Amino acid sequence: MLFAVKMNVEIPRDLDEQVRVDLVEREKTYCQELQKSGTWRHIWRCAGQYANLSIFDVADNEELHRILWNLPLFPFMTIDITPLAQHPSDLAAGAR
Amino acid sequence: MLFAVKMNVEIPRDLDEQVRVDLVEREKTYCQELQKSGTWRHIWRCAGQYANLSIFDVADNEELHRILWNLPLFPFMTIDITPLAQHPSDLAAGAR
Amino acid sequence: MLFAVKMNVEIPRDLDEQVRVDLVEREKTYCQELQKSGTWRHIWRCAGQYANLSIFDVADNEELHRILWNLPLFPFMTIDITPLAQHPSDLAAGAR
Amino acid sequence: MLFAVKMNVEIPRDLDEQVRVDLVEREKTYCQELQKSGTWRHIWRCAGQYANLSIFDVADNEELHRILWNLPLFPFMTIDITPLAQHPSDLAAGAR
Amino acid sequence: MLFAVKMNVEIPRDLDEQVRVDLVEREKTYCQELQKSGTWRHIWRCAGQYANLSIFDVADNEELHRILWNLPLFPFMTIDITPLAQHPSDLAAGAR
Amino acid sequence: MLFAVKMNVEIPRDLDEQVRVDLVEREKTYCQELQKSGTWRHIWRCAGQYANLSIFDVADNEELHRILWNLPLFPFMTIDITPLAQHPSDLAAGAR
Amino acid sequence: MLFAVKMNVEIPRDLDEQVRVDLVEREKTYCQELQKSGTWRHIWRCAGQYANLSIFDVADNEELHRILWNLPLFPFMTIDITPLAQHPSDLAAGAR
Amino acid sequence: MLFAVKMNVEIPRDLDEQVRVDLVEREKTYCQELQKSGTWRHIWRCAGQYANLSIFDVADNEELHRILWNLPLFPFMTIDITPLAQHPSDLAAGAR
Amino acid sequence: MLFAVKMNVEIPRDLDEQVRVDLVEREKTYCQELQKSGTWRHIWRCAGQYANLSIFDVADNEELHRILWNLPLFPFMTIDITPLAQHPSDLAAGAR
Amino acid sequence: MLFAVKMNVEIPRDLDEQVRVDLVEREKTYCQELQKSGTWRHIWRCAGQYANLSIFDVADNEELHRILWNLPLFPFMTIDITPLAQHPSDLAAGAR
Repeated sequence: MLFAVKMNVEIPRDLDEQVRVDLVEREKTYCQELQKSGTWRHIWRCAGQYANLSIFDVADNEELHRILWNLPLFPFMTIDITPLAQHPSDLAAGAR
Repeated sequence: MLFAVKMNVEIPRDLDEQVRVDLVEREKTYCQELQKSGTWRHIWRCAGQYANLSIFDVADNEELHRILWNLPLFPFMTIDITPLAQHPSDLAAGAR
Repeated sequence: MLFAVKMNVEIPRDLDEQVRVDLVEREKTYCQELQKSGTWRHIWRCAGQYANLSIFDVADNEELHRILWNLPLFPFMTIDITPLAQHPSDLAAGAR
Repeated sequence: MLFAVKMNVEIPRDLDEQVRVDLVEREKTYCQELQKSGTWRHIWRCAGQYANLSIFDVADNEELHRILWNLPLFPFMTIDITPLAQHPSDLAAGAR
Repeated sequence: MLFAVKMNVEIPRDLDEQVRVDLVEREKTYCQELQKSGTWRHIWRCAGQYANLSIFDVADNEELHRILWNLPLFPFMTIDITPLAQHPSDLAAGAR
Repeated sequence: MLFAVKMNVEIPRDLDEQVRVDLVEREKTYCQELQKSGTWRHIWRCAGQYANLSIFDVADNEELHRILWNLPLFPFMTIDITPLAQHPSDLAAGAR
Repeated sequence: MLFAVKMNVEIPRDLDEQVRVDLVEREKTYCQELQKSGTWRHIWRCAGQYANLSIFDVADNEELHRILWNLPLFPFMTIDITPLAQHPSDLAAGAR
Repeated sequence: MLFAVKMNVEIPRDLDEQVRVDLVEREKTYCQELQKSGTWRHIWRCAGQYANLSIFDVADNEELHRILWNLPLFPFMTIDITPLAQHPSDLAAGAR
Repeated sequence: MLFAVKMNVEIPRDLDEQVRVDLVEREKTYCQELQKSGTWRHIWRCAGQYANLSIFDVADNEELHRILWNLPLFPFMTIDITPLAQHPSDLAAGAR
Repeated sequence: MLFAVKMNVEIPRDLDEQVRVDLVEREKTYCQELQKSGTWRHIWRCAGQYANLSIFDVADNEELHRILWNLPLFPFMTIDITPLAQHPSDLAAGAR
């Protein structure tokens, strides 16, 4: 089951620099592990923004919530979620 | 070069029914030809909406504009565009 | 899996009166059948509005989309969807 | 009498950690006591958000206000309220 | 129990003139009967707008909904509702 | 001459506690004196909000501005103003 | 007593042309009579918009409402009102 | 050439009191000098707001920008600009 | 003196086709004549939108208003205007 | 390939003054180097705002993102991006 998730990041200027570096590094590791498991299907940078557009493939809303809630940068994010369904014009759908 | 495109469709109630059916059929054909050529990379239905979220892979803004402008349903759409770039955490990027 | 769905209804003034009555009747039947099956868990009227707030229990986004898309009044609705997860303070959750 | 209440929580980053833990704990206790008394009828986590959607069953606006105003996390919440009425399609209403 | 209700009226230009006159007259009668019964406590014209701000005193949300739903001009109104409670600085409250 | 005034209060968390208590107390006194003089005709708490809806009866815009500008909590308020006029359906108007 | 009033005009395309011409002419006459009486103190065109920004000098909200409500183009306008008071830096104020 | 300019002021609470007093005084002097030169044609307080609506008469956009940029309170203002033109109904225009 | 102007076009579906074609042709001629005279300095299509972003070089607000007001498609446009000034980092400015 | 980019700048008041001066100077140098290379085609000050409207000529979204991300003032900017295409009325287009 797919969800489009837009994440806007706004790290406070007074956050300790080492804390910031660690958070960003942990965020990257966390993201890549979920890519390897097939859960975090796509991640794109929104050009000119500290933001990304991502596609998640999860079992249900609970899994989606758990993943987002545990993002290392979650406290500094604004998150918008769009539940996705198969589009009747999607050729890939027929192949599944 | 990727763009995320959100298309909201609002077909007027008084549009002739046969015209509507033809437009929707042409839209589907147009969409699937662009999927086959690799230009329309993804199309998802936004659940509960007459709307889709799509990812386009185009040469430049001119191609993106020409594709969207020629959508059979373009006159009945509201379109939002987000230019995308490679995300530093994207594993797929390294494989390209 | 639960979703909160807010439906605002705006039936055009020039819709044929009999068509309107039939649509509203079919909407009611459709809604009550889904209540009986346990899918449409709650439906409340938003006071002073031609709108409702509903809770759906569905298998996935596909089922949610199919149900909403087939609402008899769907062409006259604006729909907002909020995916829900279990709240850590919810006593009912422990009982499930 | 029912109200839907959406609560968005934003706890300041510089709040003392022990104070935060205590507040969240008191919030949970407060919430669960009101669930036991039948006042706080439902609480759901909005997936991917530090937010909840709740349904309250209160005697009047005064009781609703008193409950929300006394939430331990009230100073850190943005709250939206929707007064609810019985929907004419609601099967449960007939059983009451 | 008090509610503040803001009603914006937008009567379609092509509504039959006699129908319009009748609706406005019925609206006035309906409004004044509720004033006499003490339910529609205040009604003010918002200066320069086809809109009013009103205060209703009702038993519960059900009564509020029924009153608003049956306004002769309801199909042409946009309605915003604010549930009110007693303010701790209100002198009149002590006198009740 | 009447104005509806919506006041949203947001007192900064780091304001000295005694300062806060004094301000709130002065606000209450200020409000009640204006009630006694008949200027601050109504004040209602917006349920679930640190906000009020008030009705002022003033000689002109100058008096309205002076009253609001001198509210002890003015620096911490967001204020919306709606000029009110007599409504043609208002029964009370005839009695004045 | 001064008010700033922003009027946006949107005349329906299907309004009879002669009706439109008459309305615009009556609007101009109405406006200029109020200028001569000193009530409509200023009127400026908002560049590139079918809109104006005006300053009215009226006795009270009732007069402001009556003037705006009777504008020949009132049914086709969206109106925003800002009550004005004397500014402490205004040199002209001292001369009054 | 005229511009309407709306200035909303929000001075941070932790600004040094003497700095604040000096800024407000310099703002007043700056404003009044431009009134004397005929550039700052009108300034009105928006009732109940720390805001003003002003009319500037400048040679061009460059002069407008230079004047606003050099306002002592500029760093604490949100500014909206409306370019104005002569209105065809303006009687004063014929007299110029 | 420069202005950035964003024009969104929405031609009603029921406009006579020949009228539409003529309007669009006249719009193009009008636009190109102003380009030749140096007034309409730039015009770009907003990709995927029936909209353009343009830069005008005019003597004053009056000229800007007259040009926009006389656009053949003006009745079907929504227009946003941004007055521009020279930027201190602009190299081209030094060369002028 | 052209993009219109609107940059709003908001430098925190408590940023060290020397840091601020250095950032603004580096921003200017960065901007002018991109002007010399033909990438930053236009930069205009939005009158009365700490903001600019710019036109970039880049190879693709990646280059646009890299340029914006590396702006010395990027952490203090809000950025809006509009992808541009050639307009059918643009005379300059024929000359390219």
